[in-house]
Amino acid sequence: MSDLPLAAVERLIRKAGAERVSEDASEALADILEEYAITLGQKAASLAKHAGRKTVTGEDVKLAGRA
Amino acid sequence: MSDLPLAAVERLIRKAGAERVSEDASEALADILEEYAITLGQKAASLAKHAGRKTVTGEDVKLAGRA
Repeated sequence: MSDLPLAAVERLIRKAGAERVSEDASEALADILEEYAITLGQKAASLAKHAGRKTVTGEDVKLAGRA
Repeated sequence: MSDLPLAAVERLIRKAGAERVSEDASEALADILEEYAITLGQKAASLAKHAGRKTVTGEDVKLAGRA
């Protein structure tokens, strides 16, 4: 997959305190994040539809993240 | 925050089935993903340290995602 740029994902692992980061670590995290993003995106799209909207808003995403 | 590019995050929301995506939706999802990435990154860094390594690997990240 990897829609998310690996350099940005690697930065986040470093921000979390990693000294060194192998390339497959960034790839693995990108896969996990993308899967989570799709799951939340689907929930958010359902919430928008439920509210009679075609546009997914920040509130839909925040509610999806809490649910 | 937003270390993750919003255009890439918006693409993921569309991939999940959203017709239209407001900008604050992409921002909200980027925030959630970054927070999750830091949490998993911290777990992965601890797992690497536990294994006597300074380099965080894909296996560390995968195990952190399962734990």
